[in-house]
Amino acid sequence: MKAIFDDRQYVHDPKHFMRNGDRLENPEQPERADRLKAGAIAAGCDIVVPSDNGLGPIAAIHTSEYLGFLRTIHGRWTAVDGAGPEVIPNIHPPARTASYPSSPAGLAGYHQADTSCPISEGTWESAYWSAQTAITGADVVLAGGRSAYALCRPPGHHAFSDMAGGFCFLSNAAIAAQRFVAAGLRPAILDVDVHHGNGTQGVFYNRADVLTVSIHADPSGFYPFFWGYAAERGDGAGLGSNLNLPLPRGTREPEYQESLAVAFERIRDFGADVLVLALGLDTHVNDPFEGFAISTEGLGDITAAVAKVGLPTLLVQEGGYLSDDLGPNLTAALQGFLGV
Amino acid sequence: MKAIFDDRQYVHDPKHFMRNGDRLENPEQPERADRLKAGAIAAGCDIVVPSDNGLGPIAAIHTSEYLGFLRTIHGRWTAVDGAGPEVIPNIHPPARTASYPSSPAGLAGYHQADTSCPISEGTWESAYWSAQTAITGADVVLAGGRSAYALCRPPGHHAFSDMAGGFCFLSNAAIAAQRFVAAGLRPAILDVDVHHGNGTQGVFYNRADVLTVSIHADPSGFYPFFWGYAAERGDGAGLGSNLNLPLPRGTREPEYQESLAVAFERIRDFGADVLVLALGLDTHVNDPFEGFAISTEGLGDITAAVAKVGLPTLLVQEGGYLSDDLGPNLTAALQGFLGV
Repeated sequence: MKAIFDDRQYVHDPKHFMRNGDRLENPEQPERADRLKAGAIAAGCDIVVPSDNGLGPIAAIHTSEYLGFLRTIHGRWTAVDGAGPEVIPNIHPPARTASYPSSPAGLAGYHQADTSCPISEGTWESAYWSAQTAITGADVVLAGGRSAYALCRPPGHHAFSDMAGGFCFLSNAAIAAQRFVAAGLRPAILDVDVHHGNGTQGVFYNRADVLTVSIHADPSGFYPFFWGYAAERGDGAGLGSNLNLPLPRGTREPEYQESLAVAFERIRDFGADVLVLALGLDTHVNDPFEGFAISTEGLGDITAAVAKVGLPTLLVQEGGYLSDDLGPNLTAALQGFLGV
Repeated sequence: MKAIFDDRQYVHDPKHFMRNGDRLENPEQPERADRLKAGAIAAGCDIVVPSDNGLGPIAAIHTSEYLGFLRTIHGRWTAVDGAGPEVIPNIHPPARTASYPSSPAGLAGYHQADTSCPISEGTWESAYWSAQTAITGADVVLAGGRSAYALCRPPGHHAFSDMAGGFCFLSNAAIAAQRFVAAGLRPAILDVDVHHGNGTQGVFYNRADVLTVSIHADPSGFYPFFWGYAAERGDGAGLGSNLNLPLPRGTREPEYQESLAVAFERIRDFGADVLVLALGLDTHVNDPFEGFAISTEGLGDITAAVAKVGLPTLLVQEGGYLSDDLGPNLTAALQGFLGV
């Protein structure tokens, strides 16, 4: 399997992270990419660099207001007297339809859903290449590959069309899915990260041409708190094209596999002809977020089950944080998918 | 003039404050109350303690979900492993209609608009007595007083019916206005704080029985960023019952008085028979927020003009932060109103 990655994805190095009012080290470290690369190589992948497909496929998902914000806000922010080194919001609009402010602090509040997506000088560069990695991965599948692995870092599934959040800036899985739509295909996105894929859901919430399914820890007590409930089924033309399968904290493999079977049934009913697997590895029992309790072997069983759906599949990296298990977990997931 | 204040309003002592990504000392210090008390005494006021009118008049403005949150969240929050000493949100819902989370972190994001309203152990006690101070002030006016001054600290005008924000927890001016409505009167609220009175506006946005007018620094580059634009005119039955008069940073008295005249005309057209003056002193040239450039004498001229409207008036303290001018500014404002 080809694994796509570009060294410019290392540049983004976020510091700020807040949890329960306490300031901690941001867990979305560049070192994640090293561990994941090692895990992909151990699974037998060839590492290839992405092509540069430009802004077009990214702008097919994200608004021009938001892309302008991501590209320019760090320079504007640091020009403010007494500003900190990273762009971090401290006030938020009550609705997306609120008036659009012009100051850096107002823009940060509008375009960043939370305090875990600080923007520093290198953020745009890394996010851009992470998205190019997803696009190139889609192109590998479109060129007839049975599968490809896009090592997207920073991750993408908490990024909406006009809003960053939860370590994410560009919605890589959504951008890849849109690449498939543009090629005349009917994609489903299956998100197996322990956190709900709220950004991906938001991007396609009113559309009937992309199915979004997410299996994740119950958001009533877990990030992202305001999205991921079973009642969220899509809206307008998209009603019925979104499926959320929340599970309790501490869920283990047997119960997880039951939800997975429900997801597969919906993907078949949707008539998907290509699959984007938003691959979070943070369902693992040793992940620092302590959501689920899946074993390394269990991660391989999950992707093995996904492979049996029989669709051409792009695996897009989402979460999974620093622990000695991170690399081996990716190896297990990729080998499970490949049936090695 | 009677000045109402209760010592329990000192208890709330917030620490956390974030501005442009930098952590600073919270400017809404208990010492503000000392300075303001001294200023009121210097203006000839008698300090009286508020009566306890219970939760009823507060619950007439705030939702029971929100009041439950304010009363209990600090205990729930500090029970979370690794939680900081103050309740501070780090993620926010995209709309008020979002699913209602059950965890402390989710609830904080739902009920706190920003990071400048940290909740500590004594917050509820102080906010409760600050609201009682406003209610007692309204009752003084209802009993036939020409005017009264409610030394509300913490302030209130950034608090919505279900959301704290900007140093504010209970919407004191709104609670007082509702007290007047309950007595059969037709109140107008005139907010002269340098920051837009977004909470007060929000409380009455769909109602035609209370007029809300605010003169403040242009929010496109100033807190609260997402509210306070001239286009916000009320909605539904309340359309036309909200008037925002944003002014540029650095505004001085002549331009301010022009907006004040527009406000008075609207208050007369509304047929108001009682006035709540949301009295921020942070329009002063030496206020640390550096919004407007009004002199101490200018503050007295503003309240003198308000007095000439000729309505029974409750003056409710809003912002105005620590500087050597804070006490004298209140003295000037109260004496201006009294025509001393």
